[in-house]
Amino acid sequence: MAKDMTLLWGTGSVPCWRVMIMLEEKRLQGYDKKLLSFEKMEYKSQEVLDINPRGQLPSFKHGNIVVNESYGICFYLESQFKNQGTKLIPDDTDQQALMYQRMFEGPTFYDKVGAVVYYEYYVPEGERHDSAVKRNREALVTELNLWEGYLQKSSFTFYCLSYVAVQMCYFLIHRLSAQRYPKLGEYHARVKERPSVKASWPPYFVEGQEDWDTLKDI
Amino acid sequence: MAKDMTLLWGTGSVPCWRVMIMLEEKRLQGYDKKLLSFEKMEYKSQEVLDINPRGQLPSFKHGNIVVNESYGICFYLESQFKNQGTKLIPDDTDQQALMYQRMFEGPTFYDKVGAVVYYEYYVPEGERHDSAVKRNREALVTELNLWEGYLQKSSFTFYCLSYVAVQMCYFLIHRLSAQRYPKLGEYHARVKERPSVKASWPPYFVEGQEDWDTLKDI
Repeated sequence: MAKDMTLLWGTGSVPCWRVMIMLEEKRLQGYDKKLLSFEKMEYKSQEVLDINPRGQLPSFKHGNIVVNESYGICFYLESQFKNQGTKLIPDDTDQQALMYQRMFEGPTFYDKVGAVVYYEYYVPEGERHDSAVKRNREALVTELNLWEGYLQKSSFTFYCLSYVAVQMCYFLIHRLSAQRYPKLGEYHARVKERPSVKASWPPYFVEGQEDWDTLKDI
Repeated sequence: MAKDMTLLWGTGSVPCWRVMIMLEEKRLQGYDKKLLSFEKMEYKSQEVLDINPRGQLPSFKHGNIVVNESYGICFYLESQFKNQGTKLIPDDTDQQALMYQRMFEGPTFYDKVGAVVYYEYYVPEGERHDSAVKRNREALVTELNLWEGYLQKSSFTFYCLSYVAVQMCYFLIHRLSAQRYPKLGEYHARVKERPSVKASWPPYFVEGQEDWDTLKDI
């Protein structure tokens, strides 16, 4: 079934991981999977540009159909393989509304963590300011507390997980304190045992995590 | 039908407008619509915070169900009112894949324009740099040319429109040159005649547009 699917991916990328979890959940193992190097800028290679003019990963092809945006790929797969593997859009109206709400809050969550973790990567040296670092960290604390509050009210189903939870793995890997954010910690502990998450765990996160402590004091 | 729906909105907001176009397309006129002031920070009022802890607009309620993220609201409405008004998710696989791809490229488009238009709003005075302004403008030109290229290959159906096209109205209102971006210009000309777009046109854009020329030279 998945023989006619190709995923070009990079290790350490949350959007790539999201797609890989989704492919596992939809029982689409056996797809053609090619790991490209961010360091060597292989995402700007002709192979990528041929299907993705943005030169970004993931880049995904199913037969002649190309979808590259990770959320787009998730929706596309759910639509094409509705009755295969895990159902990712709940039928229940309340649950579905909550899923859509949390799912589309996901990018905000990710932006806030990115503004802290990738500050030096994205902002050229001459444009960096302590005041911006402080503001970004404060915004992230607010955001984390918001999600901590969401989890106090109701646990997320796996419907949200493939979209949002992958980010939580990522945050915890960056040494976010599970003491200070116990609900996020619990959720992470549960998510990382999910077979789809285990099967797709990017090697980068295992090898490198010793050095990553950007979120330690958040 | 739409009597049990409430939309709290602000004029000039692309996400709010997106939802209003969607409500028109799904023939859900007659919903309870309350215009709040950004200037007076009414988006942080208790009325908003009661349903939206982020204190943002749009905030949307249907009966007891709350969805606030604009893309989430679009998906929710399409799911609940599938057979009413315009169908917003195409059945055809190719068309659907393309819609998901463009739809989720939309936020990147919006971010790039936002980085130019709102630079002074978001970046405190002491942290502003000409180098950043230059970089943001160049990134926007690249992005605009990408979409111009998309439109050269195939016109968007209305499927994409409610998600993406509202941004194009916005860009053109900010005096983006239809000479330099003729396909975007054509698309805008078509979109603004759509009854749903006309019916929901935010008053802010009519009154204020004389002064807006941030995108004039892009």
